[in-house]
Amino acid sequence: MSLAVVGSVALDTVETPTGKNTEGLGGAAVFASLAAANYTQVHLVGVVGTDFPEEHVQLMRSKNIDLTGLERVPGRTFRWTGKYHEDVNQRDTLDTQLNVFETFHPKLPKAAAEAKYLFLGNIHPALQLEVLAQSKAEFIAMDSMNLWIQIERARLEEVLAKVHCLIINNDEVYLLTGERNLIRGARKIQNMGPAIVAPKKGEHGCLLFDGPRIFSAPAFPMPEVADPTGAGDTFAGGFMGYIAQQGNADFETLRRAVIHGSVLASYTCEEFGVSRLARATPADLKTRYDAFVELSKF
Amino acid sequence: MSLAVVGSVALDTVETPTGKNTEGLGGAAVFASLAAANYTQVHLVGVVGTDFPEEHVQLMRSKNIDLTGLERVPGRTFRWTGKYHEDVNQRDTLDTQLNVFETFHPKLPKAAAEAKYLFLGNIHPALQLEVLAQSKAEFIAMDSMNLWIQIERARLEEVLAKVHCLIINNDEVYLLTGERNLIRGARKIQNMGPAIVAPKKGEHGCLLFDGPRIFSAPAFPMPEVADPTGAGDTFAGGFMGYIAQQGNADFETLRRAVIHGSVLASYTCEEFGVSRLARATPADLKTRYDAFVELSKF
Repeated sequence: MSLAVVGSVALDTVETPTGKNTEGLGGAAVFASLAAANYTQVHLVGVVGTDFPEEHVQLMRSKNIDLTGLERVPGRTFRWTGKYHEDVNQRDTLDTQLNVFETFHPKLPKAAAEAKYLFLGNIHPALQLEVLAQSKAEFIAMDSMNLWIQIERARLEEVLAKVHCLIINNDEVYLLTGERNLIRGARKIQNMGPAIVAPKKGEHGCLLFDGPRIFSAPAFPMPEVADPTGAGDTFAGGFMGYIAQQGNADFETLRRAVIHGSVLASYTCEEFGVSRLARATPADLKTRYDAFVELSKF
Repeated sequence: MSLAVVGSVALDTVETPTGKNTEGLGGAAVFASLAAANYTQVHLVGVVGTDFPEEHVQLMRSKNIDLTGLERVPGRTFRWTGKYHEDVNQRDTLDTQLNVFETFHPKLPKAAAEAKYLFLGNIHPALQLEVLAQSKAEFIAMDSMNLWIQIERARLEEVLAKVHCLIINNDEVYLLTGERNLIRGARKIQNMGPAIVAPKKGEHGCLLFDGPRIFSAPAFPMPEVADPTGAGDTFAGGFMGYIAQQGNADFETLRRAVIHGSVLASYTCEEFGVSRLARATPADLKTRYDAFVELSKF
């Protein structure tokens, strides 16, 4: 089964304690698509400017990602600049230039609209609603962020009511629900719509709530994190890609999807931008999946 | 094999968002002993004043805990008063009265000195050294705290060099090593002495480092935490009790010991003080151990 991925395509400038990467390929749709492409046919929907380097297009094409839905319009590509603290779980956004993203309205080509699986990256809830109006997907996961929770809550709740799964940072659970306790917070989110809630806890792993059931996944222990940018989107892409490949979303599949997403996210963190993710081979994925088994068995 | 437990015996006054408990039975040695007694013969070493309620002695006796090493001296029992935030991962100490604990020097009766396993609860490193001088234990785990890391570092390092396992809060790993990254921090601690390091992450579970090997254990998902006081000591007691029962500390045993410790700690959090922990039956422990399996399998 195929997967549509809608979200930002960006040029990221990132500084971390280990180095700096200037205008590297980034954006939620890119990380998610590169991750998902390990498992299934991906249809990417997004927008870039005329300055978007052709090598990035070629990279995504080489992964068999369908770019029919990647608009190229006059202007500059979306740019994000951020700096991570010594504790790489914390970062400051130094600059955001929306550029061509400012007037973007996602248009799903036929294949993307008909994809059975859909991942709505973190974009304005109004745009997420536009995507939902065009999509025939039967299983939809979404991401969001603190900004939309704070300034577009009503529309965000409209989106939540229409999706099956919310993938979200654990501190955003508190922002969205007022609950400091993740269990109570996730239950409140389930009452807003999605039966499946996956709070990402960074270095502490990820929880998955599926109705009354709970799965707790570890994080891959990493003594060095070069650049965590895109790790959450990579997780979401690997998670949805595996579900699309399996063609179902029962609890056993969801558990394994969380691990596949975590495997890919760990690779993303190892180097700046998409570079390590893009190089991950099937053998790499198998090796690290086995490491997750070893890490958590008892 | 039997286990000696050395540490505080206290009367705790605790306020949490769900209620208040005045002068309840507490202290590291009590929580750890009650937990460990589910698995093995425990020899408790500590001190109380003449005001220590007889019912607490009876409770511990009823669990077959050997109290030969529990001194009763003139004066008042150690008292601790704390208040937890809405986020129960955070607390403020409102009052500490050392009382009889101030002049305490642990004296290990023969059975405690000859116990093959020893848990050194969080007491002054100088006292931990006094215990080590008396103990014939072949496997020793210790706890410590921010205060000793800050003001008694040299003696703390002396203790660390003599033990096999450090059980510690994850934020204390940073304090002890200067490393924000738990993997690097644990490696530094291993270089100080203990081959086994178990950073406790509260609601995020626990990691276990055993030489180069790593195990990641989930926390039991709790929508309500009545009182987390003593959860860390309970964990340590369950962990060491299980190891003592098994009579070895290979990696497979250590993994399961972490889960047994986590099972018991989850019960401690369910009610104020020791009340739920003290009521936990073998059937309860089995049920929750199975829940941990279900929670983390994939």
